[in-house]
Amino acid sequence: MAEGNSPVPANGMTLEAVRDSLIRQEDTIIFSLIERAKFPLNSPTYQQSYASIPGFSGPLIDFFVKQAEALQAKTGRYQNPEEHPFFPDDLPPSLVPPYDFPPILHPAANSINVNNKIWDTYFNQLLPLLAKPGDDGNYASTATSDLNCLQAISRRIHYGNFVAEVKFKDAPEDYEPAIRAQDRDALMKLLTFEAVEKMVVERVGKKTKTFAQEVTLNSTSRNDQKCKVDPSVVSQLYEKWIMPLTKLVEVEYLLRRLD
Amino acid sequence: MAEGNSPVPANGMTLEAVRDSLIRQEDTIIFSLIERAKFPLNSPTYQQSYASIPGFSGPLIDFFVKQAEALQAKTGRYQNPEEHPFFPDDLPPSLVPPYDFPPILHPAANSINVNNKIWDTYFNQLLPLLAKPGDDGNYASTATSDLNCLQAISRRIHYGNFVAEVKFKDAPEDYEPAIRAQDRDALMKLLTFEAVEKMVVERVGKKTKTFAQEVTLNSTSRNDQKCKVDPSVVSQLYEKWIMPLTKLVEVEYLLRRLD
Repeated sequence: MAEGNSPVPANGMTLEAVRDSLIRQEDTIIFSLIERAKFPLNSPTYQQSYASIPGFSGPLIDFFVKQAEALQAKTGRYQNPEEHPFFPDDLPPSLVPPYDFPPILHPAANSINVNNKIWDTYFNQLLPLLAKPGDDGNYASTATSDLNCLQAISRRIHYGNFVAEVKFKDAPEDYEPAIRAQDRDALMKLLTFEAVEKMVVERVGKKTKTFAQEVTLNSTSRNDQKCKVDPSVVSQLYEKWIMPLTKLVEVEYLLRRLD
Repeated sequence: MAEGNSPVPANGMTLEAVRDSLIRQEDTIIFSLIERAKFPLNSPTYQQSYASIPGFSGPLIDFFVKQAEALQAKTGRYQNPEEHPFFPDDLPPSLVPPYDFPPILHPAANSINVNNKIWDTYFNQLLPLLAKPGDDGNYASTATSDLNCLQAISRRIHYGNFVAEVKFKDAPEDYEPAIRAQDRDALMKLLTFEAVEKMVVERVGKKTKTFAQEVTLNSTSRNDQKCKVDPSVVSQLYEKWIMPLTKLVEVEYLLRRLD
């Protein structure tokens, strides 16, 4: 919807801007998946006691993500309401001056974090479809790639807060009855547009075909080409996990929108 | 060159495998540049005294890269001879069991690190061509993107060690006289194939056009499309900086190959 059709944009943010961001984030997610698929599974990264780290017990990936998030917290990442940590407990404070991010969301957004579900889905469902079996010893690079994927997927899903806010501001009368009734099912129905979802699933498949192809000087793009990531895996990721979890965030946000 | 034509492959590594890796690394570099271009310049990331970090003086990017490399060192990144830190001093030891990377390179490779030149080129030459002016407050994400670009470019350039080793093993008699004479110019001449370099420059331009395009359900790939990164910037990056620095690494390696 163009800005002109949106009578009360959420602090200048329009549904069009939200959609543009979601579309651009598709590219980021697909790039990060292609880069993770470059490495084999590298299972020592995920084994309970592969590394012996003083003062830490757990898999290498947990150590890596916790420490990387601590560094990113110090450099201000989580001041941006688009960003959500996977290990939110005991994060150090930011060491950079606060940046004036425009206040768009209701404060309720601060209490919404579905990263536990994203973590579980990524490692147990997606990664086995993405990474070939094998071990090339690149555990640190593998963990870095995992974190890039996790952060890109998490940003997309928690962007549901912005989607919900803009939709609510656009037509509060549509949502208020279901919010007052705390009716999850009604909200989910209001937020579901099957034709749009089908289009997204198709588009991310097409994007994956384009970005994951082998480009050579002699080749033209072909549909039968072997891809670095199977386009159907990305379509499935969106259909089964990203879009449902985004809508879950939207519902959680709207349920608290009138608090 | 196919394996069958290479009489003494360097511990099983062939020129063909080296070339395949270099070609795959092009995709990684281009993805990382597209992702950096998503953010504006975000100059506070690079200002001498923007952040006030206890026990540290310097720009935020230095703090971020040093700390991120320390974490990656702990998780074993620099055990792989393909990886080279930007701040090699005082890196902590790895906390993961050593992985048995195949011994391909002469130990001389350990003393070759051109990351100072890469750092300077990236921030002073490339970044102004890549990032639009502006400040959106995402300094931590910007620094993360910078590090992804720096590491991808650094891995490509230091892969010159493997290129040189495989070429040397393939035809030692071609290189030995120049190595014994410590003749840099003669080695540079032996390692320069203008037709191949021209092809690489063209290929990375074509790849950038493909990966940096807007993919929509209705569109077909077009040559006149606006790209997220200007393909000529990536061609220039390869022509002016990546390929000359790779050859510099190759020359440095060969000069020490008979030590």
